[in-house]
Amino acid sequence: MGSRMVRNVLKSGRGVVVHDLDQNATAKLQAEYGAAVVCVNEPSAVGAHKDIWAVVSVLPASQHVKSVLIDGPKSVLAGSKTRDQPLLFVDASTIDPSVAKQVREEIVRAGRGEMIDAPISGGVGGAEKGTLTFMVGGEERAFTQARPLLESMGKNIVHCGANGTGQVAKICNNLLLGISMIGVSEAFNLGMRLGIAPQVLAAIINSSSGRCWSSEVYNPVPGVLSGVPASNDYKGGFGVPLMAKDLNLALGAAIDSKTPLPLGSVAAQVYTLLSQQQGYAQLDFGSVFKFLNESNHLNKK
Amino acid sequence: MGSRMVRNVLKSGRGVVVHDLDQNATAKLQAEYGAAVVCVNEPSAVGAHKDIWAVVSVLPASQHVKSVLIDGPKSVLAGSKTRDQPLLFVDASTIDPSVAKQVREEIVRAGRGEMIDAPISGGVGGAEKGTLTFMVGGEERAFTQARPLLESMGKNIVHCGANGTGQVAKICNNLLLGISMIGVSEAFNLGMRLGIAPQVLAAIINSSSGRCWSSEVYNPVPGVLSGVPASNDYKGGFGVPLMAKDLNLALGAAIDSKTPLPLGSVAAQVYTLLSQQQGYAQLDFGSVFKFLNESNHLNKK
Amino acid sequence: MGSRMVRNVLKSGRGVVVHDLDQNATAKLQAEYGAAVVCVNEPSAVGAHKDIWAVVSVLPASQHVKSVLIDGPKSVLAGSKTRDQPLLFVDASTIDPSVAKQVREEIVRAGRGEMIDAPISGGVGGAEKGTLTFMVGGEERAFTQARPLLESMGKNIVHCGANGTGQVAKICNNLLLGISMIGVSEAFNLGMRLGIAPQVLAAIINSSSGRCWSSEVYNPVPGVLSGVPASNDYKGGFGVPLMAKDLNLALGAAIDSKTPLPLGSVAAQVYTLLSQQQGYAQLDFGSVFKFLNESNHLNKK
Amino acid sequence: MGSRMVRNVLKSGRGVVVHDLDQNATAKLQAEYGAAVVCVNEPSAVGAHKDIWAVVSVLPASQHVKSVLIDGPKSVLAGSKTRDQPLLFVDASTIDPSVAKQVREEIVRAGRGEMIDAPISGGVGGAEKGTLTFMVGGEERAFTQARPLLESMGKNIVHCGANGTGQVAKICNNLLLGISMIGVSEAFNLGMRLGIAPQVLAAIINSSSGRCWSSEVYNPVPGVLSGVPASNDYKGGFGVPLMAKDLNLALGAAIDSKTPLPLGSVAAQVYTLLSQQQGYAQLDFGSVFKFLNESNHLNKK
Repeated sequence: MGSRMVRNVLKSGRGVVVHDLDQNATAKLQAEYGAAVVCVNEPSAVGAHKDIWAVVSVLPASQHVKSVLIDGPKSVLAGSKTRDQPLLFVDASTIDPSVAKQVREEIVRAGRGEMIDAPISGGVGGAEKGTLTFMVGGEERAFTQARPLLESMGKNIVHCGANGTGQVAKICNNLLLGISMIGVSEAFNLGMRLGIAPQVLAAIINSSSGRCWSSEVYNPVPGVLSGVPASNDYKGGFGVPLMAKDLNLALGAAIDSKTPLPLGSVAAQVYTLLSQQQGYAQLDFGSVFKFLNESNHLNKK
Repeated sequence: MGSRMVRNVLKSGRGVVVHDLDQNATAKLQAEYGAAVVCVNEPSAVGAHKDIWAVVSVLPASQHVKSVLIDGPKSVLAGSKTRDQPLLFVDASTIDPSVAKQVREEIVRAGRGEMIDAPISGGVGGAEKGTLTFMVGGEERAFTQARPLLESMGKNIVHCGANGTGQVAKICNNLLLGISMIGVSEAFNLGMRLGIAPQVLAAIINSSSGRCWSSEVYNPVPGVLSGVPASNDYKGGFGVPLMAKDLNLALGAAIDSKTPLPLGSVAAQVYTLLSQQQGYAQLDFGSVFKFLNESNHLNKK
Repeated sequence: MGSRMVRNVLKSGRGVVVHDLDQNATAKLQAEYGAAVVCVNEPSAVGAHKDIWAVVSVLPASQHVKSVLIDGPKSVLAGSKTRDQPLLFVDASTIDPSVAKQVREEIVRAGRGEMIDAPISGGVGGAEKGTLTFMVGGEERAFTQARPLLESMGKNIVHCGANGTGQVAKICNNLLLGISMIGVSEAFNLGMRLGIAPQVLAAIINSSSGRCWSSEVYNPVPGVLSGVPASNDYKGGFGVPLMAKDLNLALGAAIDSKTPLPLGSVAAQVYTLLSQQQGYAQLDFGSVFKFLNESNHLNKK
Repeated sequence: MGSRMVRNVLKSGRGVVVHDLDQNATAKLQAEYGAAVVCVNEPSAVGAHKDIWAVVSVLPASQHVKSVLIDGPKSVLAGSKTRDQPLLFVDASTIDPSVAKQVREEIVRAGRGEMIDAPISGGVGGAEKGTLTFMVGGEERAFTQARPLLESMGKNIVHCGANGTGQVAKICNNLLLGISMIGVSEAFNLGMRLGIAPQVLAAIINSSSGRCWSSEVYNPVPGVLSGVPASNDYKGGFGVPLMAKDLNLALGAAIDSKTPLPLGSVAAQVYTLLSQQQGYAQLDFGSVFKFLNESNHLNKK
């Protein structure tokens, strides 16, 4: 996803300083765009570079954001100590909202600039086409400053509120998504067991009060929609372990804020279990339908 | 709901023979429509009436459908034993699909005609305006025969498949609806606890993958939408005990067919508990948000 | 289990009239005990036999109890119509308490005698040694009459109350057992993942407030106890599908009585899913530990 | 609990240096024991005191342990920087196992001594009588050194393994306890709804496979046992919010280690909700029975 986003920044006429563990990816970018791309070996070298004003990070989890951005001598923050100008940190990773706030506070306290959290939705396809949605948490001024940069990579740039609320929006949406997908899978699996054709059930649900994105746009039952992972053996799409990660972020935030999640907590267990089941870790999260439904086949024997 | 449906049948130029435990309701109908309305004291008198060809029933639960339609000397079936012509039974109640099939089999076995299950969605408003949806399970011929009658009361008449599948469609939709509403409530409650405004979160979710009827059309957070129960102290709408009933129908059907419902089973417990909590039994099922959120207020003290 | 129970009745000096779908089993009994054993081909022939005063049934599920005892011309009830003397029906199956009451009412209404529900615990081992527990629901008089017969097969004969309460006691115990076993599996799996040896954890739990039969007597972690299914590849013991059946009986009774089961409902889903997983249907219900723990291995790869 | 533990240390002939936010408590101790008790105003003053060799802490949660023991200039660690001799830190709080390990590492890295985690079970009564159980995680040498001190306060001192495993043992036991208590409450509530007397059900369960501490020793149904919170309006005992805290610790550790907790996650939601229900926050955790059962009363009206 990262290199697709960088491409869109480059297309907007901006130059970039890039660091990636995958050096092939950065070498390829440089071959393609020449002097507009500077490859460096450490996050600190990004932060130390004189010609940049913003740092965009897309990382797997909270601990990577902390280690790349603020912890230790190789971090962006450490590198930035030699600069005169402040930096705008734009973290597009999906992480714990409280970590997002904590990282931002450390950057501000160190007097190195500002930070916004700006997690993404829209998937690899959206990254490619530059139609991503960014959910942004942070100060109004920082948001305004970042907006043109974000618009080079995405289409829908929403200011959600104070620092952390970008992450909050992302994990609350995905909490609901993860629940809906299991709900759709249960409803269709039960209906089919009781003798209704999935296409008929989809037509009814999609024009009734059960209507939701997981049924209408991304139906998990093979053959109901074309062009979705369910109709391609659950290949591509949004992987089970990623959904497990997002639901566990929501559950962790719920524990910290003493907020009850009667369904979200169970949904998190379902994806956690599924991501550890043989053959599911590589599949789209709609494969929860397959999991419930394959059981039926075993049952019928 | 029943008398609103009868009015629409009468408006279509048909006469009716009515039985209702609430004799005021039937008296009122007769005063209004005169000879087109015949009031009788027992279900059997409906079945025995020479001038009818179809019997429409809307009853609270499986046991009522059995006792009114087929069990004992006062049932419609008992009354119908004196007729020459077969009857078409149209049961618009929401009940266990296996009971729907069993009642139909008994009617067919007795040689008294055919039956379709035709549960309704669309609420009291839809009944009044004649815009109900009927989800119909039954033989093609019976469906075709019933269609004009159903069209006098509803707008969307869907043939779902064999007997019982009308009920299946209804309970599968409501299973998903019940899950979605709790999911929306959890996501908004968590988000608000973590500092995002519900209107902002609604805007994001409704244009993203968490989008669903419960968030977009019937949002359970007071003030997000106008004209919904949540913005009127959860008055009106679809009551908590009705949702508990429908989810327990789904759970019962799942037990019978050995189908796992990891979220549906928990959702059923939530509404069962809620329908027994002081002050919730009279509220719309979106009050599950209030339940989760009021807890927060207690917590903050 | 049935033939082991019959043997104990025969050892007590009583004669028996037996019916079993497995005719080898009954033939073997007759070869062994001669004239004390009469084999018959239909349940009705049991009920019609002049020399008996009690009928003991052990059947898989509610529908079998209804069909063998009261429904149709081949039932025990039908056969008993020719007798002068009343019969005492002793149903040792585990079934829905409301069905137990309904079957009993039909027998009493037909004037053919009395019935008690007397489900068993203690397993195949207890049946062999005659150390079963019978949980009895029914009239005091019927209980007193049945007691000597039950004592020939079991050690612990408990009168639980009115008809149906024997079933209630059985399913409530097994509801708690099914929950405890998953709880133990979760606690040990989590502990082991976090680095504690299962033997050490068992020693602590078994002398502390987590102590329960599932941990102390029937621990599901291989190697913690010897002589239990967990230490024999989960062979023998109480099968996953049987636990699924009992939890679903509890869940069905909870639906009928509008009683919330927040954990029981989830436990029922776990065993339902597990009984449909490849390789688990034949295993002891403690294999829920294996299911949770094998996932870990996949995870570690 | 703390001052009861201090008293037992004093009774064993040892002197103590105490710090407590509640200065009345420490003043009282000093009045009673004179020179054997030294009261100080900051944790750092404890660490700096020349005459001590061990520091015992009992604190509410992870963040307090970090702030009292290692963070900032007022921490015990900061105070200890002036000493020659190493200290043995004994943390008897119940906290996140990973925090326990992290705090210990910081102490060792600072060269200030060793630490063991030694959470307690046995309640206020056990603290008073000196019959507590300590579950100890840490190096063999540190365990051996601490043992006589722990024996002055408790009866059962168990070495669970490496650092953190004391916490693991505690939260795994309480995870199982929290699940069992809800399981017992569901089973008894369902049984009573279906007509069995709780004393009869207790007798059966306690001699059968449902047997557990929550039913046998601490039954949550009023009147089944005397001398337990359930028979005293759920006063005293182990509060709902404490159980919520421990289950959420288990759930947090499960998230970090990607371990599924199908029942534990729901149990955590139940206690989280309950601790926020009007009138439950002050009650023993067995009041989950009251919660499920009061609903019934509402239902019956």
